[in-house]
Amino acid sequence: MLDKSSEEDRVELISSEDRVWIDNEDPVEQRQKRQLSTTAIMIIGVDDQHSTKPRNVIMMISDGLGPASVSYARSYFQHLNQLPYDHQLPLDTIHVGQSRTRSSSTLVTDSAAGATAFSCGLKTYNGAVGVDPNGNPCSTVLEAAKIQHGMRTGLVATSRITHATPASFSAHIGDRDRENQIAVQQIGNNPLGRTVDLMFGGGYCHFLPKGTKKSCRKDDRDLLKEAQEKHGWNTVFYNNRTAFDNGTIELPALALFADDHMDFEIDRNPTSQPSLTEMADKALKLLSGSDEGFFLMIEGSRIDMAAHSNDPVGHLHDILEYQNTVALVKDFVDQNPDTVMISTSDHETGGLSLARQVSTAYPKYLWYPDVVAKASRSTASLANMIHDKSRPLDDNFIIETILKQGLGITDITTKELQYLKTTTSKKKLTKYLADMLSIRAQLGWATHGHSGVDVNLYAYGLHSDELRGSHENIYIGDFISRMLDLNLTEATQTLNK
Amino acid sequence: MLDKSSEEDRVELISSEDRVWIDNEDPVEQRQKRQLSTTAIMIIGVDDQHSTKPRNVIMMISDGLGPASVSYARSYFQHLNQLPYDHQLPLDTIHVGQSRTRSSSTLVTDSAAGATAFSCGLKTYNGAVGVDPNGNPCSTVLEAAKIQHGMRTGLVATSRITHATPASFSAHIGDRDRENQIAVQQIGNNPLGRTVDLMFGGGYCHFLPKGTKKSCRKDDRDLLKEAQEKHGWNTVFYNNRTAFDNGTIELPALALFADDHMDFEIDRNPTSQPSLTEMADKALKLLSGSDEGFFLMIEGSRIDMAAHSNDPVGHLHDILEYQNTVALVKDFVDQNPDTVMISTSDHETGGLSLARQVSTAYPKYLWYPDVVAKASRSTASLANMIHDKSRPLDDNFIIETILKQGLGITDITTKELQYLKTTTSKKKLTKYLADMLSIRAQLGWATHGHSGVDVNLYAYGLHSDELRGSHENIYIGDFISRMLDLNLTEATQTLNK
Repeated sequence: MLDKSSEEDRVELISSEDRVWIDNEDPVEQRQKRQLSTTAIMIIGVDDQHSTKPRNVIMMISDGLGPASVSYARSYFQHLNQLPYDHQLPLDTIHVGQSRTRSSSTLVTDSAAGATAFSCGLKTYNGAVGVDPNGNPCSTVLEAAKIQHGMRTGLVATSRITHATPASFSAHIGDRDRENQIAVQQIGNNPLGRTVDLMFGGGYCHFLPKGTKKSCRKDDRDLLKEAQEKHGWNTVFYNNRTAFDNGTIELPALALFADDHMDFEIDRNPTSQPSLTEMADKALKLLSGSDEGFFLMIEGSRIDMAAHSNDPVGHLHDILEYQNTVALVKDFVDQNPDTVMISTSDHETGGLSLARQVSTAYPKYLWYPDVVAKASRSTASLANMIHDKSRPLDDNFIIETILKQGLGITDITTKELQYLKTTTSKKKLTKYLADMLSIRAQLGWATHGHSGVDVNLYAYGLHSDELRGSHENIYIGDFISRMLDLNLTEATQTLNK
Repeated sequence: MLDKSSEEDRVELISSEDRVWIDNEDPVEQRQKRQLSTTAIMIIGVDDQHSTKPRNVIMMISDGLGPASVSYARSYFQHLNQLPYDHQLPLDTIHVGQSRTRSSSTLVTDSAAGATAFSCGLKTYNGAVGVDPNGNPCSTVLEAAKIQHGMRTGLVATSRITHATPASFSAHIGDRDRENQIAVQQIGNNPLGRTVDLMFGGGYCHFLPKGTKKSCRKDDRDLLKEAQEKHGWNTVFYNNRTAFDNGTIELPALALFADDHMDFEIDRNPTSQPSLTEMADKALKLLSGSDEGFFLMIEGSRIDMAAHSNDPVGHLHDILEYQNTVALVKDFVDQNPDTVMISTSDHETGGLSLARQVSTAYPKYLWYPDVVAKASRSTASLANMIHDKSRPLDDNFIIETILKQGLGITDITTKELQYLKTTTSKKKLTKYLADMLSIRAQLGWATHGHSGVDVNLYAYGLHSDELRGSHENIYIGDFISRMLDLNLTEATQTLNK
């Protein structure tokens, strides 16, 4: 049974008095107006270089990656590899602007409203998956790409595939926590039918019937079976890295590699789970090659989750793996110039600062990448090790296995040792270990939730220059819709029939 | 006598073991190589639209303004004026990219190394004003504009004009704290002679002879007199708003409006001090109109200083005033299309997050602009009021005058009241009041120093598109040098003769 109380799964529902902004105009009408005015601009402003629209759109989402995390991973990478100060990571080379992230209900969005801004091109309330502020389903760019142009479509994520971000492209529900229902919609029980051709990620617990090992459904539905028998999915498997590597995968294809989220990259066992880059690579090979083109969403989901725990290690290595995936996707665009890729975040997580005042004395102007470089496990996995160890715990296990081998910390205090030996909550241990490392690295965090800073926007390929500048997050949904000649208003009408 | 121990004046000198990066190659040689390769690109890539270089360059510096502070001021402004979520502030409309800020000595720069990256186009160590990592003077773009092309030049700042940022364009010294010596250089005691035509800002204490009221010099030199008699400054005055408004100002012109820094915008008395926008407006009128063009540096200096105190009020209103100045400068560019303006920050200050976890419970996804909207004074000015009040302090003064009228806080705790009544240090009071407001607004801060996040880059006018993307801060110095056809290497040789 999945622990649904874990932090990243909870939705902060803002009470009405906390809502700082609700737009008076119907957001769907707003979107229509924006699209009309943009079309006019396109007709007037068209030039030869850009008269051809892309056949393929790849939307990459770095969940929870704020500007400080971008700088953090770059400086760390330079330090680790003794590279000069001006060495860039793949995203740096395709920086085009920023995305402004507030939702319709609050100044600080959650991932559901954040992803719905990209998928439906409208601002909605925190917790809303593919529905507008009134709770009405809104067609997503993925769905419209399928029903209006017969394009191939895919979702790749390291979270449960039913989690807020991938869900917001493929389901419609007022509450992101209803993941069992989201899974039902994703396989094809949807007014539009099956619109997804490929799903790679975690979360098979939501697809297995109650009573099956690792199931978290409350009914007897076997969604993997339903997917094949009722909705035409050709390849369906779970927890099977061999099939992923060596099996014949035919679209539509559904492959899930963990009951819950997939592992943080730093903890991942490559014999059981593929990396984000490996999943993206396979997805690109499967989706490309058709005349109709494809839409693929790729999410580095757990960048966010490590930041929720304020864990500098898990956060860092998921960012670096995301950068690897960006390099792969950039190569794909080079080889397939009829493609545009976009990369941005739904929001920042953790309120990370590359500085931390650790005493009342005047702060030092630095932080210590070498402290983070000594760590080899996420603090969540180390917390699990402490939690699962038989009691009483001996000092050596904490000092050697957890702190020295796991986090590279050798200057533990008596108070810290005592806390780690006597605390049993996984969540508390995860955060405590994260704080121990962050203090030593002089990295600051402001919250275990999200923050309201504008996030960086990156793009590469055909028409990517149109994303230059500072934009509302919904502009990215508009852009995809425009690139693919989608009519989201019509698709939404079909969806609501 | 100026309190030189105030936080913003101190330099964090990184000890050798703390230095995380020193480049092996001579930075001056590096710059030469960059300039040669960029020139080659320009010759190959030139197109009609861009064959004309700008006559005027306006370099705006928002000291300490990080990405979160940009979002912060925008959301606040929208809230205060009940504007829609997509209302933009002037900078938002000219967003082109980001600047990467690390110095040659550490991952977190100070303002001296940060400004020298813009002025000399090279990375140097924290604390270095217009000198390279070896301590050798490097010619600045301002100096080269004057000696190589006879351009008009100006510096406008709300800090002391001798402070790190303006100093790094007009002086050469290994230690930013030697402001008395910086003033001597700025008026024209310099191997290049007088290169500055206009200085508006604060800091006259460094120009007045020892013994004069408000002087902080340790010698008998009267630099204002020297400026007129030995270096040809035509208009020289201090502490005289009337002369600024109604007097005849002729270049070279030196006008200083405070012995120390000028006031935070929220505290400013407009009858004694002009605003940043008013100073910039006057500077543009005085500098423009010559065939040779001009170089003007405008700094919103105290955005940084409020962030050092973690004061959301002072920080906010200095940002908003900076945005007003940006609007003015954009208008100037519209009317003078042979101009390019750049706006960026040297670094982030404070580690601001638009979220703050105020309890162990799951954080709310919001922050409260209405809390900040009720405040009407900087916490530094309120701390001064407490400090200067005769003892014993009565509760009503703290509760009504300081907290209710000053900060809009009406839910004070006994502990808070007790702290404010018994603490005498201005610095401690400033920070404590800042924290009281930040907690209530749910704004997080990580440090009283700087942080290492990439900062936003804005540009408008001729060739501004060349600044698109993510760049090292020194690229901005290179850009100015290239736009104005400067040869910084030759100018540096002249400087060191």
